[in-house]
Amino acid sequence: MQDKNRSELFSEIVEHRRAVRDFDTTHSMPENIVEQAMNDALLAPSSSNLQLWEMHRVKSDGVKEKLAHLCMGQGAAKTASELVVVVTRKDKWKERAKWNAEKIRSSLNGEEPNEKIKGALAYYEKLMPFAYFNDPLNITGFFKYLLLNTIGLFRPTVRRLGHTEGRIVAHKSAALAAQTFMLSVAASGYDTCPMEGVDPVRIKRLLKLPTGAEVNMVIAVGKRTSQGVYGPRLRVEANQVIQTW
Amino acid sequence: MQDKNRSELFSEIVEHRRAVRDFDTTHSMPENIVEQAMNDALLAPSSSNLQLWEMHRVKSDGVKEKLAHLCMGQGAAKTASELVVVVTRKDKWKERAKWNAEKIRSSLNGEEPNEKIKGALAYYEKLMPFAYFNDPLNITGFFKYLLLNTIGLFRPTVRRLGHTEGRIVAHKSAALAAQTFMLSVAASGYDTCPMEGVDPVRIKRLLKLPTGAEVNMVIAVGKRTSQGVYGPRLRVEANQVIQTW
Repeated sequence: MQDKNRSELFSEIVEHRRAVRDFDTTHSMPENIVEQAMNDALLAPSSSNLQLWEMHRVKSDGVKEKLAHLCMGQGAAKTASELVVVVTRKDKWKERAKWNAEKIRSSLNGEEPNEKIKGALAYYEKLMPFAYFNDPLNITGFFKYLLLNTIGLFRPTVRRLGHTEGRIVAHKSAALAAQTFMLSVAASGYDTCPMEGVDPVRIKRLLKLPTGAEVNMVIAVGKRTSQGVYGPRLRVEANQVIQTW
Repeated sequence: MQDKNRSELFSEIVEHRRAVRDFDTTHSMPENIVEQAMNDALLAPSSSNLQLWEMHRVKSDGVKEKLAHLCMGQGAAKTASELVVVVTRKDKWKERAKWNAEKIRSSLNGEEPNEKIKGALAYYEKLMPFAYFNDPLNITGFFKYLLLNTIGLFRPTVRRLGHTEGRIVAHKSAALAAQTFMLSVAASGYDTCPMEGVDPVRIKRLLKLPTGAEVNMVIAVGKRTSQGVYGPRLRVEANQVIQTW
C-alpha cells in the first residue's frame, strides 16, 4: 500500500473518532475489537519505557453498571458495550526500571556492553533512582528542585523531578496509550467516549486498586446510535494553537 | 475499504512508530508531513473541548539548533528535520470556555435551546468557572477538595479540582494530541521521537512562552537511518497491565 493512501486512511480514522454519548445497546460488539485496541495501546511510547499504566476492561454487567454510576451516570457510560478504566501506576517505577535494566542485560548474552548500552544501564540503575525517588513529604523533591534549578542557571538541565511531576509524566504516558486505544477502536469502525468527570476514589475501591494507582480516564466503547454525536466538531482555528519558527 | 483492512493498517502504523534516535540529515522531508500531522492532531479529543495546548513547529536552522541544545543535545534532537514543542496552556481556560459557549449559542440561530444545549451552556458558563477557578495559594483548591470529598462520602462525585489537577488534565489532553501527531507522521512513512528530558525553563524563554504555558514534550521528526532504532521493542506482558472484569 502506498504511503499516501495510508496517510489518508489515518486521517479518515481520526475523522471517524468523535466523543459518542449514546451507544446502541442492542448491538453485540465482537470480543476482539477491544482486545486489538489494547494490543495496539501496548505499543504506544511511554516515558523511559516504564509503562506505568494499566487498562481495566469492564465487560460484566454487574461491575459495568456500578462503574457507569461512578461516571456520574453519563449516557456514554450507561449505554456502552464495554468500559475501559485507564489507570496510572507511578508506584511501579522501581519494579519497571529494574525490569528494563534486566531486559537490556539479558540481551547482552554475556558480551561486554557498548557505550550506548552502558548509558542505558546507567540510566535505569543510577539516574532513575535519583529522578523518581521521593519521600512522603516531598522534601527530597524540594532539594532536587533547588539543585537542578541552580545548575540550570549555568547550563540546560531538566528541572522538576518531584512528586507532582512524576504524576504528570505517568498521566501523559497513559494518555498516549489511551489515544492509541481510541484510534484503534475507530479503525475497527467502533466508537469511544473519553470521560474524566468520574469519581476516582470510588472507582479505585470498585477495582481494588492500591493507593499509588490513579484514574487517568474512563473510556466508553460501543457502536454509536444516530443520536450518539451531539453536534458538529468545534475546533479553534489552527493558527490559534500552531506556531511556526 | 473494509473495516478489517483499516484496522490491520492502523496496527501497521502503530508497529512502524518507534522512538527514533538518529535521523537522516541528508533527507529533505516534504513540508506537508508535519502540516498533515498537525491537522490530524487538532482533531484529538480534549478535556471539555478546551483545547488547552499548542504546537510550536521549529524548522529554521537557527532556532532548531538552540532547541536541540535544550533537549540536552540528544541525538534525536540534533539530527531531526523538524522539532515540534507540545505546550499546555491551562492559563487559557477562561477564554476557551467562553469560546465554546459562544459557538454553542451561535449555533442556535436565535432558537430556544433544548435541555442538552442548556446543559452544555451551564457547564461552560457556571460549572467550569467553579472547576477551574483558583487563587495563587491554592486556598480555593483546598476548600473545593474539602467540599467535594465531603459530598463524596455520600454519593459519587468528582474529587479534585485544584491547581495540580488542572495541570494534569491539560497535560493529558496535550498527550492525546501528541500521540495523534506521532501516529500521523508514522502513517506518512516518517519517524518521531518524543522527548521529556528537556530544559522547560530555557525552552519557554526561547519560544517566548508566557508563565502559564508548560512544555509537555518535544517531538523530533524526520526519516530514520538504519541506526535510528536502538533495539528490539521491549514491553511487559499484556497480563501485567491489562485486567478484565
